[in-house]
Amino acid sequence: MLPEVVLGEGKTPHQVAEIATRLAEQADRVLVTRADADCFAAVREAIPDAEYHETARSITLVRNAMRREPGVTLLCGGTADLPVAEEAAVTAELMGNEVQRVYDVGVAGIHRLLDHLPALQDARVIIAVAGMEGALPSVVAGLVAVPVIAVPTSVGYGASFGGIAPLLAMLNACAAGVSVVNIDNGFGAGYQAGVINRLALSERPD
Amino acid sequence: MLPEVVLGEGKTPHQVAEIATRLAEQADRVLVTRADADCFAAVREAIPDAEYHETARSITLVRNAMRREPGVTLLCGGTADLPVAEEAAVTAELMGNEVQRVYDVGVAGIHRLLDHLPALQDARVIIAVAGMEGALPSVVAGLVAVPVIAVPTSVGYGASFGGIAPLLAMLNACAAGVSVVNIDNGFGAGYQAGVINRLALSERPD
Amino acid sequence: MLPEVVLGEGKTPHQVAEIATRLAEQADRVLVTRADADCFAAVREAIPDAEYHETARSITLVRNAMRREPGVTLLCGGTADLPVAEEAAVTAELMGNEVQRVYDVGVAGIHRLLDHLPALQDARVIIAVAGMEGALPSVVAGLVAVPVIAVPTSVGYGASFGGIAPLLAMLNACAAGVSVVNIDNGFGAGYQAGVINRLALSERPD
Amino acid sequence: MLPEVVLGEGKTPHQVAEIATRLAEQADRVLVTRADADCFAAVREAIPDAEYHETARSITLVRNAMRREPGVTLLCGGTADLPVAEEAAVTAELMGNEVQRVYDVGVAGIHRLLDHLPALQDARVIIAVAGMEGALPSVVAGLVAVPVIAVPTSVGYGASFGGIAPLLAMLNACAAGVSVVNIDNGFGAGYQAGVINRLALSERPD
Amino acid sequence: MLPEVVLGEGKTPHQVAEIATRLAEQADRVLVTRADADCFAAVREAIPDAEYHETARSITLVRNAMRREPGVTLLCGGTADLPVAEEAAVTAELMGNEVQRVYDVGVAGIHRLLDHLPALQDARVIIAVAGMEGALPSVVAGLVAVPVIAVPTSVGYGASFGGIAPLLAMLNACAAGVSVVNIDNGFGAGYQAGVINRLALSERPD
Amino acid sequence: MLPEVVLGEGKTPHQVAEIATRLAEQADRVLVTRADADCFAAVREAIPDAEYHETARSITLVRNAMRREPGVTLLCGGTADLPVAEEAAVTAELMGNEVQRVYDVGVAGIHRLLDHLPALQDARVIIAVAGMEGALPSVVAGLVAVPVIAVPTSVGYGASFGGIAPLLAMLNACAAGVSVVNIDNGFGAGYQAGVINRLALSERPD
Amino acid sequence: MLPEVVLGEGKTPHQVAEIATRLAEQADRVLVTRADADCFAAVREAIPDAEYHETARSITLVRNAMRREPGVTLLCGGTADLPVAEEAAVTAELMGNEVQRVYDVGVAGIHRLLDHLPALQDARVIIAVAGMEGALPSVVAGLVAVPVIAVPTSVGYGASFGGIAPLLAMLNACAAGVSVVNIDNGFGAGYQAGVINRLALSERPD
Amino acid sequence: MLPEVVLGEGKTPHQVAEIATRLAEQADRVLVTRADADCFAAVREAIPDAEYHETARSITLVRNAMRREPGVTLLCGGTADLPVAEEAAVTAELMGNEVQRVYDVGVAGIHRLLDHLPALQDARVIIAVAGMEGALPSVVAGLVAVPVIAVPTSVGYGASFGGIAPLLAMLNACAAGVSVVNIDNGFGAGYQAGVINRLALSERPD
Repeated sequence: MLPEVVLGEGKTPHQVAEIATRLAEQADRVLVTRADADCFAAVREAIPDAEYHETARSITLVRNAMRREPGVTLLCGGTADLPVAEEAAVTAELMGNEVQRVYDVGVAGIHRLLDHLPALQDARVIIAVAGMEGALPSVVAGLVAVPVIAVPTSVGYGASFGGIAPLLAMLNACAAGVSVVNIDNGFGAGYQAGVINRLALSERPD
Repeated sequence: MLPEVVLGEGKTPHQVAEIATRLAEQADRVLVTRADADCFAAVREAIPDAEYHETARSITLVRNAMRREPGVTLLCGGTADLPVAEEAAVTAELMGNEVQRVYDVGVAGIHRLLDHLPALQDARVIIAVAGMEGALPSVVAGLVAVPVIAVPTSVGYGASFGGIAPLLAMLNACAAGVSVVNIDNGFGAGYQAGVINRLALSERPD
Repeated sequence: MLPEVVLGEGKTPHQVAEIATRLAEQADRVLVTRADADCFAAVREAIPDAEYHETARSITLVRNAMRREPGVTLLCGGTADLPVAEEAAVTAELMGNEVQRVYDVGVAGIHRLLDHLPALQDARVIIAVAGMEGALPSVVAGLVAVPVIAVPTSVGYGASFGGIAPLLAMLNACAAGVSVVNIDNGFGAGYQAGVINRLALSERPD
Repeated sequence: MLPEVVLGEGKTPHQVAEIATRLAEQADRVLVTRADADCFAAVREAIPDAEYHETARSITLVRNAMRREPGVTLLCGGTADLPVAEEAAVTAELMGNEVQRVYDVGVAGIHRLLDHLPALQDARVIIAVAGMEGALPSVVAGLVAVPVIAVPTSVGYGASFGGIAPLLAMLNACAAGVSVVNIDNGFGAGYQAGVINRLALSERPD
Repeated sequence: MLPEVVLGEGKTPHQVAEIATRLAEQADRVLVTRADADCFAAVREAIPDAEYHETARSITLVRNAMRREPGVTLLCGGTADLPVAEEAAVTAELMGNEVQRVYDVGVAGIHRLLDHLPALQDARVIIAVAGMEGALPSVVAGLVAVPVIAVPTSVGYGASFGGIAPLLAMLNACAAGVSVVNIDNGFGAGYQAGVINRLALSERPD
Repeated sequence: MLPEVVLGEGKTPHQVAEIATRLAEQADRVLVTRADADCFAAVREAIPDAEYHETARSITLVRNAMRREPGVTLLCGGTADLPVAEEAAVTAELMGNEVQRVYDVGVAGIHRLLDHLPALQDARVIIAVAGMEGALPSVVAGLVAVPVIAVPTSVGYGASFGGIAPLLAMLNACAAGVSVVNIDNGFGAGYQAGVINRLALSERPD
Repeated sequence: MLPEVVLGEGKTPHQVAEIATRLAEQADRVLVTRADADCFAAVREAIPDAEYHETARSITLVRNAMRREPGVTLLCGGTADLPVAEEAAVTAELMGNEVQRVYDVGVAGIHRLLDHLPALQDARVIIAVAGMEGALPSVVAGLVAVPVIAVPTSVGYGASFGGIAPLLAMLNACAAGVSVVNIDNGFGAGYQAGVINRLALSERPD
Repeated sequence: MLPEVVLGEGKTPHQVAEIATRLAEQADRVLVTRADADCFAAVREAIPDAEYHETARSITLVRNAMRREPGVTLLCGGTADLPVAEEAAVTAELMGNEVQRVYDVGVAGIHRLLDHLPALQDARVIIAVAGMEGALPSVVAGLVAVPVIAVPTSVGYGASFGGIAPLLAMLNACAAGVSVVNIDNGFGAGYQAGVINRLALSERPD
């Protein structure tokens, strides 16, 4: 079963805690994204076994342990992209996937990326997180034959235009096998990778 | 093995025929997208067993029959979106997938879409093609738990801005499980759906 | 008679109080939109019988009770859209309309929306407030034959571009019967719905 | 009952004729918009009693005479905006409305507009069609207390950007009571005005 | 002689005071625009006879009285546009022009504008300041035969896009005789009106 | 008295001829802009004394000779900008101004521009036409103290975006005294320069 | 000495021939860019020793043989980018540079690019031409320590937006050493590479 | 050897100090850009011989003195552009270049620029930093025959759109020899100029 999800952004800590509490009564896994420390404080008061993932700015509640299935590889180029990458990782993990993180690989240091070729070739689905010129998914999709979920980030300045530059680059990827989620949408990429990786396990989705 | 692909747009019929001929020497399946009738004439002269898919504006060459695996469902709202939808279908079929076409379903007639719920629930991966407000992927992703590949089309006028309207709508889909390809990129969606559907068949991609 | 209206945004509390006081001398109903708590404090000092609607960020003054006419139904998908929706509601109510609020209906949970079909079919005019992909008006207009006033909100992030995504989606609605107001313009939608609903009451507007 | 509608743009004459024929079997009023002469030739062959409205680029089929209800006033500034205005007129008329056309009124000749004040004050709903700076709806909405449906057109050049200039102007109208349809969407405005004008006739829409 | 001008924005109070002091040694009139209270405090310490215009956010130094020539009329619709309008007024006045202010005239209340027709007809040059839909210059230029300098402001929200809406509207004005300055550029409009009004006084500019 | 003006673009030759004929009955000077050879043929048939200005794509009718007043200087950088520049010239001339043309001056050859300093200093008003980076008005306004009317053209390619590049450059001119008209709007610039130059002749405009 | 250059686009064959003839009287090397076959026919009639470079759409006249200096390497990914790449090559060659062409290298086939590492390492300056996601310059600049001149092309569709996607990607290149010219501006890149390569030959430019 | 570089923006002081310390162990020159005072405090604690360049917002560490080679000239128009210009200067200096700063030259005062012609003619490469209309590179490139690296800045307001105006102007420069880096990217320009200036010193880059 898929987790229940709350987008924390644009809600007060009180509102988030209230919604999370209600969902926790029905579901054994709950995810709150875009949650700051205040938000977590309010949630923890209502749900003491909730956990906070600081870099990912996410809160998780897991009441039913799930075996984690390997198959998701997560690539990320820059330190500043880590919050988005970790949001993707936390999401995919909560959905029962084991996530192999390959951080600090960017297209300006192509040999560092090529050093990780085995990790890429082991994947069933790859998440590629990148800001600036957003070229990582194109290069990666040229190296593998599995779906690549591209996540543009708002990391950059000037003509990055808050992530428009990598978003357009990813939509125009010259390699086949790339699809794209919204700017900074680590959750969306983690979720999409999660549902894709589940396909290998069962004939039909639940 | 994946097919070899040529983007016909921006090349002369002669150039396309030349490239296709070279690829046909190495691969048993070749796809030419964005190919008009002149382009097909040139290709057929060089490769007599090439086939033309008129609505899809695509040429295929298949020299090695492949069993078609079910799992891909293709949704499309309007008649004018058919060339993009068929390009997706031809691509996925060439990659060995059986494509269940569900045409003439749009969000303005929501009950017609709901009538097809069984076809949606049977799918391992769904392609949703839509122009105008591009809402189809959001509605569909709310009904299923499989990956939805969204394809915005340039169908529309005025504030559609050549497909920007559905592109942005799809990137902002409020339902989880949606990822997006370039405007009118039926090939990209068919390919992405194809590699996803293969995951159910084998433990590891080739 | 229509109420006098002040846009609070971009004015000091003192300026708003001054303008509201002047209007209150001539009109029996005054509305201040985009008013924060400081603004209300200044207005209440000058006009003790003014009321504050916190979620709607609006101040109303009503000195002449008006029978509220049914006919306006207000739809809203997300919690974060409520300030805009409530601004629409307060506006329409002040103009003598009874507003039937149907909150927490989004296109990703289409069955929840369909559960409210009777409320939609009872309406003479519908206001549909949505951020993100902005698909609610298209779906709703496909279900009814009354005017739908669509309000895009700036709720979202990344490629929402401050509400451009739902604005474009609503302008491109594939269902007939939709017209659109500015991003976050709850007042404009409430007002437009109000003047439309009055048409059913009288042969000619005053 | 509302007419059945076909958007002719992006379809072949043959396709339009086919769809129109099918609809004509079920409905007594059919509208084809964005139809050129070739398209009409194909339709007339299949449906001999279809009529062509050249300026409006529209085809109508009416098999059940309907009394036309007054209440819709249609304003248009420039000669080049007439195709959009006439598309609105034909649509509203087909829905059973009498349309009072007030052409050749622009904000640069404000007195000409003011000469038509009685026609504005008689209306239950006003359609204002304008290209270039798109100011007509703001001025008109300041003169009346009925809903104004604003239609931006792509008439203009340079920084008109295909109608973006009047679209933005109309969305930012400083007068209350304006809602907006897509650029060049005469059909949408005529339809919206039509459903609004019907409200005055019956307690509840059908 | 024209005044020396310093753009205060983006400079520290200390830097502004330093530049202003240097200019004051060479020129008998100095203007600092976009200056806040801190900036003025620094300038006044260095130049005790400098004056602050709070609404206009401008500092002036006048050491050589100049007769003010009538001919400039300044129109402004909304209270929130006043800082831009007053910046234009202070600039034109410092250049030796008498400025006739006509505030609180907007296109949504066209009769209030028409009440000021004599003031418009007396002008040699008109400055029209407007945010939102920016229609004021079009209407005014249709009423007079003198140059209209249009100033779009960033007043508005949503699809105003920080002043893009009125900027585009003014560039597309359907009336002849309108030219446009940058968004919020009251100084530029006041200066342009100033140099135009001087033409009536002398055969050739200095 | 000002001439009557018809925008030829978007009208049939027949429509233009009809409007021009009507105007020619009331006015002694008529201008048709954006008129091609077919359009002129139709006009000449109706009005045999009409004249065609090929580069300017304009038709003029002058039945009342007017003394041409010097004072307007027209600058233009590139050959491809000439149609816009000539439209400005024809317009200003028809309004009774003598236009001093200074062509082939661009910012990349700054010394050629400086060679024309006397012509700039003789002007009462300057029109500066430029495409590409649109820097001419900034440089010119730094050299003179008279109003500069800037006309961006759509000449260029790629990131010129149909004239957006020079339009933005001109709106951001760092020199005071620049105001801007629409992209390719030679008529607007010629007209504005014309009404400005008239100010030197009379105390009050007619 | 640098060649004289004419931009053929937007000029008639006659105009181009006239300008080229005039330049050929003063200079021993002339370049016409964006020239089609008609344009060349006109030029050749006037200047019989002019040469046409079809793919580059360029005409050259060389009357003074120049030794070609090695140092410029030109990279290009796709067949459709060749006209832009060849325009760069012809330009740099005419300026006395030997150009090493490395075509058919794209980021989706990173190993093909890496096979050319020696050619990259031999270069004094590199031109990288790419459409679609425009990632080539980032990858290349990460491999070398010489200036990379990036040329975005308008090759692509949908969200390529006529070359905006690669333009933004190149401006946001995460590798240092990249500067960018206009979309499709092969001439500009060839020229910039040419003047850079000359620096190695002389202490000071002429 | 080239310096190691850290982009300080988007990292905590602690993160920057950590990365800088690691790099300082391997390299004898380190550059941190976009570093505020807090960031420098953290770095200095770890690396006591690090230096802070306040206007440039940059930290440098130099452990191996390098002779500075003349050849780079840096032009900048406005005081507000200085942080970007100084970032370019510090970068080029750290790479072993002597930078000749020519500040306070703008296109609105063209004679001030022309006074510096000798400094321009001495340069092997020129960096031109400009906000607002961004015309400086065009004018400069028309005066010299060396590469000009153009840096648009976000200095300006309104239709500057955060630096889009000068960015587009620079990409459309009518003079040959201009290439462009990202908005506010002083580092990129300094680095590009640095690698270009090195070419004059050695036959082949290291």
